[in-house]
Amino acid sequence: MKSFVTFGEIMLRLTPQEALQPLVDASALKMGFAGAESNVAVSLAIQGNRVSYITALPDSPLGQAAINSLRKWGVLTHSILRQGERIGTYFIEQGASLIPYKVHYDRKYSAIQMIDKNTFNWPELLKGQDYLFLSGITPSLSTNCAHEVMQATRSARQAGTKVCFDLNFRRTLWKDMKQAKAVYREIIKNTDIVIGNEGAVDDIFDFSSAKKSQQARAEELMLRLNGEFGTKTIAFTLRDASSNSRQKLSGILFKDHNFYPTRTYDIEIMERIGGGDAFAAALLHTLANKWEPEKAIEYASAAFALKHSIPGDLNLSTTEEILEVIENKSFGFVKR
Amino acid sequence: MKSFVTFGEIMLRLTPQEALQPLVDASALKMGFAGAESNVAVSLAIQGNRVSYITALPDSPLGQAAINSLRKWGVLTHSILRQGERIGTYFIEQGASLIPYKVHYDRKYSAIQMIDKNTFNWPELLKGQDYLFLSGITPSLSTNCAHEVMQATRSARQAGTKVCFDLNFRRTLWKDMKQAKAVYREIIKNTDIVIGNEGAVDDIFDFSSAKKSQQARAEELMLRLNGEFGTKTIAFTLRDASSNSRQKLSGILFKDHNFYPTRTYDIEIMERIGGGDAFAAALLHTLANKWEPEKAIEYASAAFALKHSIPGDLNLSTTEEILEVIENKSFGFVKR
Amino acid sequence: MKSFVTFGEIMLRLTPQEALQPLVDASALKMGFAGAESNVAVSLAIQGNRVSYITALPDSPLGQAAINSLRKWGVLTHSILRQGERIGTYFIEQGASLIPYKVHYDRKYSAIQMIDKNTFNWPELLKGQDYLFLSGITPSLSTNCAHEVMQATRSARQAGTKVCFDLNFRRTLWKDMKQAKAVYREIIKNTDIVIGNEGAVDDIFDFSSAKKSQQARAEELMLRLNGEFGTKTIAFTLRDASSNSRQKLSGILFKDHNFYPTRTYDIEIMERIGGGDAFAAALLHTLANKWEPEKAIEYASAAFALKHSIPGDLNLSTTEEILEVIENKSFGFVKR
Amino acid sequence: MKSFVTFGEIMLRLTPQEALQPLVDASALKMGFAGAESNVAVSLAIQGNRVSYITALPDSPLGQAAINSLRKWGVLTHSILRQGERIGTYFIEQGASLIPYKVHYDRKYSAIQMIDKNTFNWPELLKGQDYLFLSGITPSLSTNCAHEVMQATRSARQAGTKVCFDLNFRRTLWKDMKQAKAVYREIIKNTDIVIGNEGAVDDIFDFSSAKKSQQARAEELMLRLNGEFGTKTIAFTLRDASSNSRQKLSGILFKDHNFYPTRTYDIEIMERIGGGDAFAAALLHTLANKWEPEKAIEYASAAFALKHSIPGDLNLSTTEEILEVIENKSFGFVKR
Amino acid sequence: MKSFVTFGEIMLRLTPQEALQPLVDASALKMGFAGAESNVAVSLAIQGNRVSYITALPDSPLGQAAINSLRKWGVLTHSILRQGERIGTYFIEQGASLIPYKVHYDRKYSAIQMIDKNTFNWPELLKGQDYLFLSGITPSLSTNCAHEVMQATRSARQAGTKVCFDLNFRRTLWKDMKQAKAVYREIIKNTDIVIGNEGAVDDIFDFSSAKKSQQARAEELMLRLNGEFGTKTIAFTLRDASSNSRQKLSGILFKDHNFYPTRTYDIEIMERIGGGDAFAAALLHTLANKWEPEKAIEYASAAFALKHSIPGDLNLSTTEEILEVIENKSFGFVKR
Amino acid sequence: MKSFVTFGEIMLRLTPQEALQPLVDASALKMGFAGAESNVAVSLAIQGNRVSYITALPDSPLGQAAINSLRKWGVLTHSILRQGERIGTYFIEQGASLIPYKVHYDRKYSAIQMIDKNTFNWPELLKGQDYLFLSGITPSLSTNCAHEVMQATRSARQAGTKVCFDLNFRRTLWKDMKQAKAVYREIIKNTDIVIGNEGAVDDIFDFSSAKKSQQARAEELMLRLNGEFGTKTIAFTLRDASSNSRQKLSGILFKDHNFYPTRTYDIEIMERIGGGDAFAAALLHTLANKWEPEKAIEYASAAFALKHSIPGDLNLSTTEEILEVIENKSFGFVKR
Ligand SMILES: [Ca+2]
Ligand SMILES: [Ca+2]
Ligand SMILES: [Ca+2]
Ligand SMILES: [Ca+2]
Ligand SMILES: [Ca+2]
Ligand SMILES: [Ca+2]
Ligand SMILES: [Ca+2]
Ligand SMILES: [Ca+2]
Ligand SMILES: [Ca+2]
Ligand SMILES: [Ca+2]
Ligand SMILES: [Ca+2]
Ligand SMILES: [Ca+2]
Ligand code: NI
Ligand code: NI
Ligand code: NI
Ligand code: NI
Ligand code: NI
Ligand code: NI
Ligand code: NI
Ligand code: NI
Ligand code: NI
Ligand code: NI
Ligand code: NI
Ligand code: NI
Ligand code: NI
Ligand code: NI
Ligand code: NI
Ligand code: NI
Ligand code: NI
Ligand code: NI
Repeated sequence: MKSFVTFGEIMLRLTPQEALQPLVDASALKMGFAGAESNVAVSLAIQGNRVSYITALPDSPLGQAAINSLRKWGVLTHSILRQGERIGTYFIEQGASLIPYKVHYDRKYSAIQMIDKNTFNWPELLKGQDYLFLSGITPSLSTNCAHEVMQATRSARQAGTKVCFDLNFRRTLWKDMKQAKAVYREIIKNTDIVIGNEGAVDDIFDFSSAKKSQQARAEELMLRLNGEFGTKTIAFTLRDASSNSRQKLSGILFKDHNFYPTRTYDIEIMERIGGGDAFAAALLHTLANKWEPEKAIEYASAAFALKHSIPGDLNLSTTEEILEVIENKSFGFVKR
Repeated sequence: MKSFVTFGEIMLRLTPQEALQPLVDASALKMGFAGAESNVAVSLAIQGNRVSYITALPDSPLGQAAINSLRKWGVLTHSILRQGERIGTYFIEQGASLIPYKVHYDRKYSAIQMIDKNTFNWPELLKGQDYLFLSGITPSLSTNCAHEVMQATRSARQAGTKVCFDLNFRRTLWKDMKQAKAVYREIIKNTDIVIGNEGAVDDIFDFSSAKKSQQARAEELMLRLNGEFGTKTIAFTLRDASSNSRQKLSGILFKDHNFYPTRTYDIEIMERIGGGDAFAAALLHTLANKWEPEKAIEYASAAFALKHSIPGDLNLSTTEEILEVIENKSFGFVKR
Repeated sequence: MKSFVTFGEIMLRLTPQEALQPLVDASALKMGFAGAESNVAVSLAIQGNRVSYITALPDSPLGQAAINSLRKWGVLTHSILRQGERIGTYFIEQGASLIPYKVHYDRKYSAIQMIDKNTFNWPELLKGQDYLFLSGITPSLSTNCAHEVMQATRSARQAGTKVCFDLNFRRTLWKDMKQAKAVYREIIKNTDIVIGNEGAVDDIFDFSSAKKSQQARAEELMLRLNGEFGTKTIAFTLRDASSNSRQKLSGILFKDHNFYPTRTYDIEIMERIGGGDAFAAALLHTLANKWEPEKAIEYASAAFALKHSIPGDLNLSTTEEILEVIENKSFGFVKR
Repeated sequence: MKSFVTFGEIMLRLTPQEALQPLVDASALKMGFAGAESNVAVSLAIQGNRVSYITALPDSPLGQAAINSLRKWGVLTHSILRQGERIGTYFIEQGASLIPYKVHYDRKYSAIQMIDKNTFNWPELLKGQDYLFLSGITPSLSTNCAHEVMQATRSARQAGTKVCFDLNFRRTLWKDMKQAKAVYREIIKNTDIVIGNEGAVDDIFDFSSAKKSQQARAEELMLRLNGEFGTKTIAFTLRDASSNSRQKLSGILFKDHNFYPTRTYDIEIMERIGGGDAFAAALLHTLANKWEPEKAIEYASAAFALKHSIPGDLNLSTTEEILEVIENKSFGFVKR
Repeated sequence: MKSFVTFGEIMLRLTPQEALQPLVDASALKMGFAGAESNVAVSLAIQGNRVSYITALPDSPLGQAAINSLRKWGVLTHSILRQGERIGTYFIEQGASLIPYKVHYDRKYSAIQMIDKNTFNWPELLKGQDYLFLSGITPSLSTNCAHEVMQATRSARQAGTKVCFDLNFRRTLWKDMKQAKAVYREIIKNTDIVIGNEGAVDDIFDFSSAKKSQQARAEELMLRLNGEFGTKTIAFTLRDASSNSRQKLSGILFKDHNFYPTRTYDIEIMERIGGGDAFAAALLHTLANKWEPEKAIEYASAAFALKHSIPGDLNLSTTEEILEVIENKSFGFVKR
Repeated sequence: MKSFVTFGEIMLRLTPQEALQPLVDASALKMGFAGAESNVAVSLAIQGNRVSYITALPDSPLGQAAINSLRKWGVLTHSILRQGERIGTYFIEQGASLIPYKVHYDRKYSAIQMIDKNTFNWPELLKGQDYLFLSGITPSLSTNCAHEVMQATRSARQAGTKVCFDLNFRRTLWKDMKQAKAVYREIIKNTDIVIGNEGAVDDIFDFSSAKKSQQARAEELMLRLNGEFGTKTIAFTLRDASSNSRQKLSGILFKDHNFYPTRTYDIEIMERIGGGDAFAAALLHTLANKWEPEKAIEYASAAFALKHSIPGDLNLSTTEEILEVIENKSFGFVKR
């Protein structure tokens, strides 16, 4: 059993209770807790791994409920700091057909954003851990958060903990694109596995490709990242997003100078949020457990596609359920 | 800012709370208030216009709730009469795939249907108003309602208020087709903008076209209406309705002897009710504000298509959201 | 008006209240009662027939609620025994896109499974009845249940009651495939109408066809069943199940050595459970009432397809609504 | 087993889904079907009797759902006419503390109100029936309804069917108090058992008592009714209603010139509607089955009090549950 | 018709959907918008007055929904500023028996708290207005908010607009009690009507009374306030709060050196929040409309008590419903 | 921090979603997981202790969900066996006023009931643990379960782990009262702390007292238990249960030959289930942490009373919230 650490912000997630109801017309909200890194933590735990999640949360009923939501799925929460005044909050409006999914953030001044410099003792937290998972959201929260992420990657290097970094670029959270670019560069240099997609690479580094097919463009960009930062393992999700209700989804892995593209899923979208986190967790699960690259990325793509039928941020699929997708079992038949 | 008056019946709208549940098996009903003209009023108000809605409602909690439902979205309700015994009621059964949407009316004897002759002081109500919006439903409710509609159009002419009329033909509400035809003729003669579709024109006037494409048939019928009644501005919605779950939708405008057809949306249907009202309001918004015909009708078609993903009768989309559809922004991507 | 008897197990049906929510994450369950034979009974009653349902249920609130759920739709419940300790229970997880529907049974030790030998007086129960409907689920519950089903078919022969048998094979319920095969053979020999599909025939008898088209394979298998058991009337459902959200559905009837295939419905799946029961009831309704074979099986296929848009196990469609599907009425238009 | 016939109006019952929510602020309504006489029918059926309910209902999903709601509890519905345009509707606002329960009717023009003269064949409907139950609501609906009720009582006399009449006075439904009084007189003369309370007797006949205790006033009024109309069996409910949340409830029976008062229940009110109907059904159940007067009225009072903890119009209590109240079993302890 | 202005913070109100459910265990939240001053505005509007509400709200779906929630009840919202980043949020946990109601605030950095100095043009906003209503919450939000409140009271004096001030002391919102005291003093000096209670007066000014009865203590404190600040009209609510489920409630008015105590309501508490706001609005309604002091305060006390049975922050009672409480109408009887 | 082990059966808990709705009329069920010993485990964990729960659960979504429900609150679940076919299930009907709470069990054949002899390695499980909590329910499930409980108590003695035993007598689960008595005797002999009440002692041992006051009877019975079994620490709950809506609750501790009775809470009952488990956990928390007997039992009584306002089986109160009850803080006032 491999052990993982993830670090980031878990937020209160509120979404109108009725399907497709605009927030402006809602009278009840479904309530949960989620965040890119905690979503990855939950997926890893459900898939049978030992996972510890690091963050700061206020000592309030909502802070406690956030912790409970992680413990429920088996994530270890002992290292979470209880401090600060508020938990970041976001509101999701469901999309369909011509209506995009919308996320409205009210996350400023949250406990994790307001941490002091050098809040976390990374050498201690990473002792004996196999993998550290990070995403591009955390360093965008505040200068101190960016500092922590960079400290964490450095400590990981020293501790022999491998680092996996999901680009997860959120333009609205960065005040200064120059600083963003510098932080991303610094982190990626200390990263073993980079996860991203065409759009993020363009947004952050202005790397783009003029090739016709999505796959060809992905391959060109992965080579560019490898050339620029020396990253040996890079995985991209691919999305052909002409509608909010039906999309084509796949993945591709670059590993030790080979490309491993996956099959494409042309499916109806029941939930648009959390697919990238499902992909990252599934890939990490397979790479940490030394699966063959072909199977590792097929598994990650299947988790990515499967997540689009599971409501909420979390990929609640078990390893067995993800494998059944790859093995084409029980399509359209009732499992009894 | 333009000012609008609409006149009609707003009803209690009840629909089984669980998705797709037949009424015969329901145990709870979602409750709202809607009607063709009040739906148009709400859309116009959300798009930033000054709109007053005219009707009669009983002095009861349900009458008050109907008024509140309009005020909520910014519609002016000061001219609504509080009289009569009941509010019209209707029950909607949601459709999908092979199941059509069904509307069951229990609207007889409603406050607006039972009004006396000459209940409304139209010269007073139309003073300083830019547009009067009416639909074919109101004159079908009772002889006195038909009389009011015809009075309103005549008063509008005298007041310099432009009249927009949505054919909205409901066969089950008319007792006598000969009378229906006469009333429609009379109203259209005093109308500046006519909104309709192929089916309605056939049902009311027995005008039909043998052309192959929907657009060609629409054009022939619009020319025929223009020839018959002299209407200079006519807009049609087009619907290719081979399924209850997926349809092709578009619009076409005839203005000053030119045709302006729009792009076609091939989309999944999440809500079948209220599309025509969304189209009418959006068109009126653009024409009143002197948009170019091409953009005006593209905006109206986008509102029409967009409404098919918004639950309930009301188009809650803002001008900005409708424009984003035309501009192809954020298809399939999450807006953050 | 024809009279029908059905015999089987009705269970407590529990399914997460929120759309697509996995059972492991549910906090409320929708509650109903269903079973293959009771579903058929309800459909027959809604379509205007006299139907009596036979089972055993505990003398408890849940046993009473199961009876009430049948009376509600007009099924006669006077012959139900009140004995035993528990009602069988099952949990349904809704599927979509890549996620199959899942059924989890907790039906062991139920009142009907635990019946003594010779519990039911079949000659008495079948007196004056036109049809007896059975399915392959009941004999799989226990040796005594299998015994009752075989007794019932024999009594039916003596009473002049026609027997209709739906193969409904559930591998997990049979302990011994050799015994299963023997029981099926014995029942089919005393059966007038057999309902099934390609997969069930393969699973039970290892009969399979190498033909390319589903229809050709179905025809080969029906001929084989006819040859083996002499059954004169056989009906199959056909399902092209490449996705859990969209499928192609049709039916085919073999009667007096002719084949009657139906049109194919290519539709979105809103509810995957209960289609076969809807098909069986509709077919029985038409055959009992001497409809022409072509129309009989078209009606059954339409009921089968229609059921995929109705939530729950029960086909709540009326005869009129099923006929409207065949007659292509109101596709995509609102019925007012 | 005794057989009963009841006749009246069953309505669509709508009540805000959230506890204590005013109708003016509701967004969802719980939906059921109820009416004084159908409530009595359901209670009698649950207590093990054979009960047939007579009314007229439209041939619509709501009409069918009303019938299903009665069949569910075992009431026979074969004699219900399917005709007319609408089902009467009413809205209930829950009360508590200082807020009274409020009932808003929208029942005018309902199928039963609009019946023609001599719609029902009473000699046929009453053949072999032991009891006919009626209430004062039905004759208030229209002249033809009053006529039917009076015909029914006369036919009952001829058929040897005993008549039980619940005064159930609704002032707002009567247009003319003089006519009301005449109708009540005429019915009571043909009635064997009269059920009422102090307030109703005052409202209808202006009979009042100056005595101090509720019981003494009830006794004086019962004697007066007996003197005036010769009714030998009269039962009253007593209510000390100083709050909407907590009340003192009891009953008293006058039979063959003896008074049988019951114990008083001082209880919290969870549901204010349907208590009188529960009382009437329980009394009828015991009197028809020849219980001793003391036990008969204690049972009726217990049903009356018990109903105030059961949501909805219907007394869903079984005979066993009502008897446990009289026997003081399991107060405050959990029944396992 | 009198015209009122109120100024303050309206917040997003979230409360667990299930009765009595702790926030730490909630999975859905009811959503509304409320605040002391906006609650008063809604009550005044429902009671038939012209009311304008002043605040700042972000230009977001939640900001718009807050405005819609006010327009729905008839409050004028034209003067609300659309600026800032977030809307204040609070979470309510329902209490009962031994569990107190709990309010958790997340209101820091809200649009109204973050306003610049001199944001509002008070002379303009108060032009022609009869009354300005303020509460002690607004000046506690920030120095600039306190400044605005003090400016508003001064402008009111100049404009001839009467000022009503509800003490509404929230200890956790004030950083410095000395500053709090100074601000309160300054405001009260410019106030015509002060509303409060024993606890608030003690918390703010350390004024307390050793008298035995609540009424005597209230009278002593009102005299003290009158002596200290010269306020001629003071009203207190009285609460005997030995349980969270049942309390004794009343009110007392000091006006022109007379005391007017009201009857006491001993009632079950269904909703603990918003009673004081209901009292303030009702009192203001009656005083502005020159009711006699006795009736004015009885009406306010009735509104105060009545509110404890209405879910949510808002007193949705109409004038007629409040008067019925004073007139002892329909206690415990169903209103039809 | 003390460490606890509890052992028993956790079941699927289903209860009608609507308040007070009878099971026979339910259409949705709230879903949770609970059991006497797991309820105690959750309470102990919430109050800050280290708690491990031992049971057997099937390897199914429901088995996993039961585990998740415990992890959520911080209970350790590593020692739970995953085996067997089903999870025990029970249905709760809420009571009020005259209606008792009802619990319907469907727990036969559950994974824990069907365990083999000597399934658990008690010396291993109890290593280093301070306390073992057991209840009388577990030994009633099957002979093997009784055997395990007795083994556990013996192993505890050897390991120096203190044993706390809650009598929790369920008559319907025992087949043989003689065996029950023998098992109880055997367990109590190895127990340090016994928790019970007057009724249980009477039901199990036929020990009863003729004293007038509840407290006097409790004291006599505690002395009798002490005399019979030598138990030095015994705690009883006291309940004056004249209604299902309002009860008087208290506790009493016998420790080292002294009696410590507590104050009495006269409160409204919002939830009747789980009070005894709340009492047991709170008492154990205080005794394990060496609180003074007076404060220990006051804390336990407060937890017992407080639980009657918290929906569900679980006492979600924190130590701080329980202490506030003892300290009479914030009664009837809103905590902000
Ligand atoms: Ca809505
Ligand atoms: Ca995320
Ligand atoms: Ca979820
Ligand atoms: Ca409409
Ligand atoms: Ca089935
Ligand atoms: Ca259903
Ligand atoms: Ca409300
Ligand atoms: Ca009634
Ligand atoms: Ca009910
Ligand atoms: Ca809970
Ligand atoms: Ca407030
Ligand atoms: Ca328990
Ligand atoms: Ni909406
Ligand atoms: Ni936003
Ligand atoms: Ni249904
Ligand atoms: Ni149903
Ligand atoms: Ni209809
Ligand atoms: Ni809506
Ligand atoms: Ni989920
Ligand atoms: Ni969830
Ligand atoms: Ni399973
Ligand atoms: Ni409300
Ligand atoms: Ni009314
Ligand atoms: Ni009900
Ligand atoms: Ni809870
Ligand atoms: Ni808090
Ligand atoms: Ni509210
Ligand atoms: Ni019910
Ligand atoms: Ni039971
Ligand atoms: Ni719970």
